[in-house]
Amino acid sequence: MHTAILSPPPFRLYHVPGEGGGREREREGSDHVTRSREVLPARMAAVAMARAVLVPLWLCWAVGCAAPPNVVLLLMDDMGWGDLGAFGEPSKETPNLDQMAAEGMLFLDFYAASPLCSPSRAALLTGRLPVRNGFYTTNAHARNAYTPQDIVGGIQDSEILLPELLKKAGYTNKIVGKWHLGHRPQFHPLKHGFDEWFGSPNCHFGPYDNRALPNIPVYRDWEMIGRYYEDFKIDLKTGEANLTQIYLQEALDFISKQQASQQPFFLYWAIDATHAPVYASKHFLGTSQRGRYGDAVREIDDSVGKILKHLQKLGISENTFVFFTSDNGAALISAPKQGGSNGPFLCGKQTTFEGGMREPAIAWWPGHIPAGGVSRQLGSVMDLFTTSLSLVGLQAPSDRQIDGVDLLPAILRGELIDRPIFYYRGNEMMAVRVGLYKAHYWTWSNSWEEYSKGIDFCPGQNVSGVTTHWQEEHSTLPLLFHLGRDPGEKYPLSFASDEYQGVMRRISAVVQQHKETMVPGVPQLNVCDKAVMLPWCNVCRCCRSSNAVCQHTVPLGCKVEQVLDWRSHTSLHTPALSLGLCCLNIFFVSLDLWFLHGAIKQLKFPTVRFKIEKWT
Amino acid sequence: MHTAILSPPPFRLYHVPGEGGGREREREGSDHVTRSREVLPARMAAVAMARAVLVPLWLCWAVGCAAPPNVVLLLMDDMGWGDLGAFGEPSKETPNLDQMAAEGMLFLDFYAASPLCSPSRAALLTGRLPVRNGFYTTNAHARNAYTPQDIVGGIQDSEILLPELLKKAGYTNKIVGKWHLGHRPQFHPLKHGFDEWFGSPNCHFGPYDNRALPNIPVYRDWEMIGRYYEDFKIDLKTGEANLTQIYLQEALDFISKQQASQQPFFLYWAIDATHAPVYASKHFLGTSQRGRYGDAVREIDDSVGKILKHLQKLGISENTFVFFTSDNGAALISAPKQGGSNGPFLCGKQTTFEGGMREPAIAWWPGHIPAGGVSRQLGSVMDLFTTSLSLVGLQAPSDRQIDGVDLLPAILRGELIDRPIFYYRGNEMMAVRVGLYKAHYWTWSNSWEEYSKGIDFCPGQNVSGVTTHWQEEHSTLPLLFHLGRDPGEKYPLSFASDEYQGVMRRISAVVQQHKETMVPGVPQLNVCDKAVMLPWCNVCRCCRSSNAVCQHTVPLGCKVEQVLDWRSHTSLHTPALSLGLCCLNIFFVSLDLWFLHGAIKQLKFPTVRFKIEKWT
Repeated sequence: MHTAILSPPPFRLYHVPGEGGGREREREGSDHVTRSREVLPARMAAVAMARAVLVPLWLCWAVGCAAPPNVVLLLMDDMGWGDLGAFGEPSKETPNLDQMAAEGMLFLDFYAASPLCSPSRAALLTGRLPVRNGFYTTNAHARNAYTPQDIVGGIQDSEILLPELLKKAGYTNKIVGKWHLGHRPQFHPLKHGFDEWFGSPNCHFGPYDNRALPNIPVYRDWEMIGRYYEDFKIDLKTGEANLTQIYLQEALDFISKQQASQQPFFLYWAIDATHAPVYASKHFLGTSQRGRYGDAVREIDDSVGKILKHLQKLGISENTFVFFTSDNGAALISAPKQGGSNGPFLCGKQTTFEGGMREPAIAWWPGHIPAGGVSRQLGSVMDLFTTSLSLVGLQAPSDRQIDGVDLLPAILRGELIDRPIFYYRGNEMMAVRVGLYKAHYWTWSNSWEEYSKGIDFCPGQNVSGVTTHWQEEHSTLPLLFHLGRDPGEKYPLSFASDEYQGVMRRISAVVQQHKETMVPGVPQLNVCDKAVMLPWCNVCRCCRSSNAVCQHTVPLGCKVEQVLDWRSHTSLHTPALSLGLCCLNIFFVSLDLWFLHGAIKQLKFPTVRFKIEKWT
Repeated sequence: MHTAILSPPPFRLYHVPGEGGGREREREGSDHVTRSREVLPARMAAVAMARAVLVPLWLCWAVGCAAPPNVVLLLMDDMGWGDLGAFGEPSKETPNLDQMAAEGMLFLDFYAASPLCSPSRAALLTGRLPVRNGFYTTNAHARNAYTPQDIVGGIQDSEILLPELLKKAGYTNKIVGKWHLGHRPQFHPLKHGFDEWFGSPNCHFGPYDNRALPNIPVYRDWEMIGRYYEDFKIDLKTGEANLTQIYLQEALDFISKQQASQQPFFLYWAIDATHAPVYASKHFLGTSQRGRYGDAVREIDDSVGKILKHLQKLGISENTFVFFTSDNGAALISAPKQGGSNGPFLCGKQTTFEGGMREPAIAWWPGHIPAGGVSRQLGSVMDLFTTSLSLVGLQAPSDRQIDGVDLLPAILRGELIDRPIFYYRGNEMMAVRVGLYKAHYWTWSNSWEEYSKGIDFCPGQNVSGVTTHWQEEHSTLPLLFHLGRDPGEKYPLSFASDEYQGVMRRISAVVQQHKETMVPGVPQLNVCDKAVMLPWCNVCRCCRSSNAVCQHTVPLGCKVEQVLDWRSHTSLHTPALSLGLCCLNIFFVSLDLWFLHGAIKQLKFPTVRFKIEKWT
């Protein structure tokens, strides 16, 4: 499908010219993989150039031009910015993660690529916004979508994933935990660059009855080895499940095996204990001040500590780059028992307010990253794609727009790279951050329809005109916030102020450039699988959960597309109304039968006459 | 007025018996000062006893039975829990305070004694709740009150202040900054135990026109040496003022002087740069990501760093106990430009939600407090009274209820003392915290009247039935929150749950005991000075700001007491209505004049007749 010519690791490229690597090899560049400065804007190209010269030297000095570093990405599920002690969680129950931050670098302004799981994960592995890599829906406006087990779409072969590129550089790649990039055979992680997999394609929702929906399967590599709630127990009542311990052991074993074989590796540890239904193993249950969610966090903290200690014990910590972050903000709809904290930020998962996309983030690489650093670099999970490539000496593909930037200048030398952050829901750019300023072009928490049912993405938070339950467009006069003095997005700047005018001029240019060059990918989350339909009215289940359109023709007049359009949520085309109309039909048929019955019995109906004295 | 017999410092008491101190001297105990175990509940008495035996030995081992430690209390003004990097402020701009925490102990559950400044400060210095020491008002229900310059009340001679006790133990005491315990001659800090003062009796509000109100005076000891905005400039437009630098120099000079004279000292550094109008000196203006408020925080952080380094440079850091905290939560009414952050907590200053009273707190005492400790001990500014006495070897007065507990067991040995936290507004106990649970007996943010004018104590936060704008009583079924899993007080526990029932039984017992033994002091904040009246309707200014009753008889039918009662805010007795009635009188008089005029002119009015055909 695609080929990738490798630039050798930068420390070979520039510091050991005698090896014949480096610039010479660049000429072999394919259509996919060449130097990133060819595709990046001028400023970034300059940074990339500086890196290309400086980093390799630095790395050589530090590690003696040793093997390229291993890469470990620890990706949490629905964990919020405010869930770690180092980020101000009041119980301070994450000593290992706090220690990791003290030994590494804390990122305060690090973002998910989407306020929802699948798109953010697809973006991490492709380095591209979900609207480019296809992990979005156009079925409704500004609608988040993901991959429940009945969705048809998934990661396309045309997308190049980080493990595919690393594999060509001799890395062995393992994913532990949640894949979430599609569950049909063609989307299997081992078809997209991973060598090993222990985990599941979907969220650990359930238990299901295995009729309308099966329980979520768990895979070891190609083989399905069981299902959640059946072979891998999750006790919803007590919250007990030993999955994190299993995932931990998988990680430790993989690291040991790779170390023994002296093979560089990429470990993508995508565990899910903090996603509802949250769980922890027996040893951790009831140990947190924060309830069951805190128990899950404590077990994760303990596990991260064990992974880092394992690396140190094996003597490879100085050759292993570790990054800890999360896929989206804490799910406040599940809080406080099943959801985390977004600290001082507004709203949570599913929204493009800070609480939905600002993530805890820690980089750790002893001997390379100065200990105790705090970075204000605007970062994104997509940067983990580009940064990992940079670490290994690879360049990102040049035949497509890559949104991730190489964070090594920020991580290793504390430089600040000027780059915007875009906040999307579906294919709508809701907001953009430039420097300390964030402009909202659309605001929406969730629909009145959901809100009236008690579903609230911003519980206890209500900023008039900001946390709106209608989708509100502000394109002509975006709502502008200064995230430094107002991290909670509570005080929009006055439209009339000089500050507003000046900042919006700058932001408008960024947005204009972004929109002009945007080529959306084919939306993968529009269609779901009719094999997993709900019986009633044939509205497929995924249509409810992700607003996808069913593949088949819907009988009985239930026009699913209309049902799914957010604008028509309050119009006539709702399942409830369809049911009502059905009931009305049944009523009329019954009436017909009753009249028929009356005729048969020759019943006489009383006649009421009206004497009309004057017609006009 | 009162006398205090000293227990010598505990390290002499028990470790150097040959000196004849200690238990022998206890027998000299006066009516005021004896061993605290005589007045504390049994559990605390046990702790006090343990301390009495253990701490002195420990101290002796550590400091070689040297001089008793100096005490430095760094009290911030309106600084919130979320304003420090160590507490999760997203910009992490407080490296010195974070370092102080790393070298000392962080308190995550430390509380002000009131959500407003004067009462909290009076409580700190007396170790007693404001409702006991008189720093409250009964003019209206659950109304906060403080000491603007036109209030008559202040700290009573019958109250025993920390510096009074320390003075008798040979300490030299200095207050730098805001006193706020009354500004009439009898309340002068040098009449209440302090030896030196540089600062002012009130907030740095202004500038005033020196007719209705004078500008706030600044004192050096007994002498008024100038006024804010006149001799001590504050530029409201730019935010520039070099007051923090002056306060810093005062602290450094005092420490140097005391060190030179080998005299133990108590420094109460009560600075106010983070109270609106916030200010910073030129060097710090514009340096923060957080705007002017952040500039003030950065200057304070820098100053604290300099004070700690000064102690280290002088070689007395191991003999100086330093505690950093704030008087109440961040003033969200002034945020984001003039107010700070309460992190994940609900509402701010003036409220008894966590944001109003949970404070940043750090204890620092190199060589004694284990570095990097994080304490979950429930603490209060009132504990600084008792803890300071304990450090010096003194016992708290026994002829009155002391609410502060000795935190040394928690600070030095990580023990947890079981004690409740009471949240008051005026003389109403609004809420109580026991362990991780907090029960609200009354909820109120602020009045609809204020709220409708844009005054909001909980901007961007709205928890239905919790952040109420009516004073709502929940005494029969208190609103219960688990602050571990729900620090933001957003999810009240179900009244029907077993958890609720069990916890409330425990809390009810605590509340019952508290209320049964409560003897309120004479309220000091009920009355203001008629010398500073506003001309209109003779409602005195303080009545508006602190709801105090004027001393004089109010003419023109403006019954101030009624105006001030919160229950009558929407009733007839408002100044607006009084004015309206006045206007109505004027109208009737005008009407009389018009009729008179008509009679004089012999005008004929048209007559309308109705023919009544049938009367019944």
